[in-house]
Amino acid sequence: MTKITIIGSGLMGSAIAFPLADNGHDVRLVGTHLDRAIISSCKERQFHPKLRRELPAVVRPFYIEELSQAMEGTEVVVGGVNSHGVHWLGQTLAAHLRPEHLLISITKGMEAGADGEVRILPDVLAAELPANVRTCVSPAAVGGPCIAGELAGRRQTCVVFGARERATLDRLAPLFRTAYYHVWTTTDLVGLEISAALKNAFALGVGLVSGLLEAAGGPDSAGAYMHNTAAGIFAQGCTEIERVLTLAGSKTSFASGLPGPGDLYVTSMGGRTVRLGKLLGAGYTFDQASQKLAGETLESVDIVRAMAHAIPHWQAENRLGPRELPLLRMLIEVIVEGKPIRLPMQDFAWQEAAQAEGVGSLT
Amino acid sequence: MTKITIIGSGLMGSAIAFPLADNGHDVRLVGTHLDRAIISSCKERQFHPKLRRELPAVVRPFYIEELSQAMEGTEVVVGGVNSHGVHWLGQTLAAHLRPEHLLISITKGMEAGADGEVRILPDVLAAELPANVRTCVSPAAVGGPCIAGELAGRRQTCVVFGARERATLDRLAPLFRTAYYHVWTTTDLVGLEISAALKNAFALGVGLVSGLLEAAGGPDSAGAYMHNTAAGIFAQGCTEIERVLTLAGSKTSFASGLPGPGDLYVTSMGGRTVRLGKLLGAGYTFDQASQKLAGETLESVDIVRAMAHAIPHWQAENRLGPRELPLLRMLIEVIVEGKPIRLPMQDFAWQEAAQAEGVGSLT
Repeated sequence: MTKITIIGSGLMGSAIAFPLADNGHDVRLVGTHLDRAIISSCKERQFHPKLRRELPAVVRPFYIEELSQAMEGTEVVVGGVNSHGVHWLGQTLAAHLRPEHLLISITKGMEAGADGEVRILPDVLAAELPANVRTCVSPAAVGGPCIAGELAGRRQTCVVFGARERATLDRLAPLFRTAYYHVWTTTDLVGLEISAALKNAFALGVGLVSGLLEAAGGPDSAGAYMHNTAAGIFAQGCTEIERVLTLAGSKTSFASGLPGPGDLYVTSMGGRTVRLGKLLGAGYTFDQASQKLAGETLESVDIVRAMAHAIPHWQAENRLGPRELPLLRMLIEVIVEGKPIRLPMQDFAWQEAAQAEGVGSLT
Repeated sequence: MTKITIIGSGLMGSAIAFPLADNGHDVRLVGTHLDRAIISSCKERQFHPKLRRELPAVVRPFYIEELSQAMEGTEVVVGGVNSHGVHWLGQTLAAHLRPEHLLISITKGMEAGADGEVRILPDVLAAELPANVRTCVSPAAVGGPCIAGELAGRRQTCVVFGARERATLDRLAPLFRTAYYHVWTTTDLVGLEISAALKNAFALGVGLVSGLLEAAGGPDSAGAYMHNTAAGIFAQGCTEIERVLTLAGSKTSFASGLPGPGDLYVTSMGGRTVRLGKLLGAGYTFDQASQKLAGETLESVDIVRAMAHAIPHWQAENRLGPRELPLLRMLIEVIVEGKPIRLPMQDFAWQEAAQAEGVGSLT
């Protein structure tokens, strides 16, 4: 039995409590200042209103003011905030985290620094910690296809834990593994996190196609949808994830596994990223679409904005050609510049020439 | 303007006539003996009953008895039969094909020879041709995500043409390319064809999950589907495609492109492969499920059966470990041995150890 404190009681932070509880750990779930209503409900009747489920009995809910109590004797800290809360989480943990703690973050996203280099969120989190803790606690992270409500429903789920040190993974993974929560591991933390972030941008791309179909009046008189188009975007998304991985310093390929196509698949099956894509595809500008989705955290938008900083940087350093990443460039046009959608299939096709010269990855 | 003869007027054979017609070619569409009703309808009113569309005016329909007439002066022959018709097509073309013809096949599938080695269908087709033709005409093939009805509806579609000689691709691809039909090319014909075949098997795997969900009573009380599970299968399918490619002698990776995840995505969106998977997942045996789908061509079943011959062969030669390809092995159990479904997620996880040793592709 291990004492584990989860900070952030949104959907994913709370869902991860289920396999931990099923493994018999002492699980403490701490809400942020945004999660007050959730924690109230959990304290009163052990019911999580967003997951719409009872929490396992062993999971104890805490308000953020009770953080010290929730951290008493804890061995593992799980960062369960969304991407906007990572700096806050680091600052909050700074006073509580000790060198002997293990830290794992479930937040997916990335930032682009002032220099244009992308920074993965575990590193953003670590940067907020005191130096003596930072050198000992290297945050691990979770990638791969996982919808929180399904994990809490104990549906068969396959994920990947990443950390720079194999020893961290060897200690963490067994705590979480159950008969329904299958955990692979990788020491390519950067690759895992970049994949987890980018898949949101490309799921937005796949989502556009639903909107384009709607704008075209739906299936035509002979019943033709636009699955071919969505599949072309899907494949290009996988290709561009691989390309960005090389730019971000990843040494491995996730092209055939859970962090790449697996996570892109599950994210394309629905949710707010696809809803935003559908609105944009149907002809709303980005401003109009965001108004309709007011109040939702749109990670995909943050990712596209981060890439809008990173691409000119990579290009200025001659690490990226001016016609590479055509799908990401189109998404930047739509999200950052407010331009209408143009499906850049012709630009995809340009890669053929590049591939013949060994630049691309398709041939 | 090029004279092009398509043999096989089913869905895909007829759909490919649309970009060819839009490019102003002289297109002849020849029905097989199974396509008589289709050709009658096309002759009477230029209407294709299976596509539920009018054919472009320039497309001329022919019965198989009129093949000589349809081949008059032709420069390019498109093989448009399904996988069961490839031997017949080769035997039929033997008398008509000349060394100067270009030949491209849209049939997806593969066979396993008596020796257990997999054979791609363009090679099966070529083996039926006279030696003097065979040495000159090297059949090209089409892979990548393309639903026929959507191509005929001129939806944006991205595909890959494969041939062993670059010169063949350079002559063929421009004839087919339109503003909606985007053609990449590869000289890795074996890799392209194996991907195109295997994606049917793995889409069957993804389809199983819909049936499992149905058998579980649908989404649970909190609305949890099984997208996580489907995504795990999807990713494992991509991984196993890559593994089989190396066994079949492919030199390249399609893990991030159209032939792998792109084609698996579009095939998982619906159609008869997914319908079969859903029935199996819901608890029907393979025999019961096939009865319910009587009359449909189930390429996925042929692929799984071919792999049931290939796997013991590869294993006997020590090219494949006994625990590799767990998803394909499970599909073989269900289809060939009539066993019930067991989701082999635990066996997927075994690959972690293999990957640490550099055997797998995930880490």
